[in-house]
Amino acid sequence: MPSENNDTNKGLSRRQWMLGTGALATTAALTHLGGLLRPAQATGGTTEKWPWPYEKLDPTVTAELAYKEWYRVFCGCAVISSVFTQLREKVGEPYTSFPIDAFVFLEGGIASWGTICGSNAGANIVSNLIIGPRIAGADAGHQIGTDVMQWYCESALPVFKPKEPKIHAVIPQTISESPLCHVSVGKWMAVADKPVGSPERKDRCARVTASVAYHLVELLNAWKDGKYEEQGDWTPISDHGINAQPNCMECHSGGVPQAPMAKS
Amino acid sequence: MPSENNDTNKGLSRRQWMLGTGALATTAALTHLGGLLRPAQATGGTTEKWPWPYEKLDPTVTAELAYKEWYRVFCGCAVISSVFTQLREKVGEPYTSFPIDAFVFLEGGIASWGTICGSNAGANIVSNLIIGPRIAGADAGHQIGTDVMQWYCESALPVFKPKEPKIHAVIPQTISESPLCHVSVGKWMAVADKPVGSPERKDRCARVTASVAYHLVELLNAWKDGKYEEQGDWTPISDHGINAQPNCMECHSGGVPQAPMAKS
Repeated sequence: MPSENNDTNKGLSRRQWMLGTGALATTAALTHLGGLLRPAQATGGTTEKWPWPYEKLDPTVTAELAYKEWYRVFCGCAVISSVFTQLREKVGEPYTSFPIDAFVFLEGGIASWGTICGSNAGANIVSNLIIGPRIAGADAGHQIGTDVMQWYCESALPVFKPKEPKIHAVIPQTISESPLCHVSVGKWMAVADKPVGSPERKDRCARVTASVAYHLVELLNAWKDGKYEEQGDWTPISDHGINAQPNCMECHSGGVPQAPMAKS
Repeated sequence: MPSENNDTNKGLSRRQWMLGTGALATTAALTHLGGLLRPAQATGGTTEKWPWPYEKLDPTVTAELAYKEWYRVFCGCAVISSVFTQLREKVGEPYTSFPIDAFVFLEGGIASWGTICGSNAGANIVSNLIIGPRIAGADAGHQIGTDVMQWYCESALPVFKPKEPKIHAVIPQTISESPLCHVSVGKWMAVADKPVGSPERKDRCARVTASVAYHLVELLNAWKDGKYEEQGDWTPISDHGINAQPNCMECHSGGVPQAPMAKS
């Protein structure tokens, strides 16, 4: 599993290392703080107990909800809303107290900056909120987020067709080879020859959002059944020496810089 | 303000348009759903009332907390934790029930994929959670997130020096010209000639995280005082016809593709 510290875990099992990162680093930080500052409340939140209760959802129902919600709250928030509004009804807390609508800003790759596609960000938020962070001892939430991104990069999207689409024109499918909004939307715009403000582009993004929500729920349901297995094979730090996405040559066509490596 | 729909708001004030997007689209979606699906609970969450109560924080105390928290939960989660653990003590709910630690996955540009720097993602989460999403009628949360990203792109980072640094070596400052982890960390690694797993790179990212938390709280405090003014001038959709970050030439050195534009 890639992480900020995955070069330090040689000789430790993944779980030992993860737990060590959390517990030991916290202790060190608190000791270090001395009397100057109050210690951060590492596990002080009432909802910071994982996993959150989860009931299996229907992928198609979830995708239809995500499609409709795109037109209210856009990509990232629609993924969160499509899962959590159902779990509010089926489970209740802690989903009821999670502020879904605050995540509208995930639109357009974070407030239109074209960074990570909001539907990928939303999927990571959902999987990590339900299953918990890797420092809590289980890495399936982290890994499901990664699996969704790798699937997103490699799939001809959108794959989901809503029952009652707002747009009846043919929506081309494109492969982004990137988790980024700018690259994903840009490649689609080039193929479709449609501007970003067109009804077709908007409906394409609504369907991509629905496609991501569908696949996310497939993975969450497998996890609930104890059948989830990591699918991704993208390990940027060990392979490339830096946090990265897989499409190096798209930006580095003039040659990929060599990352400084540890001296042996 | 850039948004998914900012090509549609000609002739409407920003606030009219924002409120219209939320209210009208929701009504349409609910009508469209008919009896097939239960309607999404647009404002059903107990914490979906904005703004959340906010008390001004000390930027230096916040930055010191963020620096220490980096070594427990990494960049994005450390920004959230540095602000929200203080507000849990000063205010209580809804901060107590927000699952801060779930956001460890923001590390390394979302689970090491090198997309948006986690500290930028964390800042957007904090400002939008406190002030609320633009569809709730106020855009300062959205805009503060954008302002932090533009400041991040243009600043020689890190600017914050902790009182008790873990690393006493000189940490170079670099200008990322990008909100992305891969670009920001990569430029720093090239200048510092240090690998991603080095103590210096980790402390650099801890200090960048602290720098972002510091600036975020400056903006939130100004907002609390009624003195916040939008600082960013990055309007990608109207300028470039696509959601984007400002450093076009870094990836498109061979020529920037022309986005399909609306036919007049």
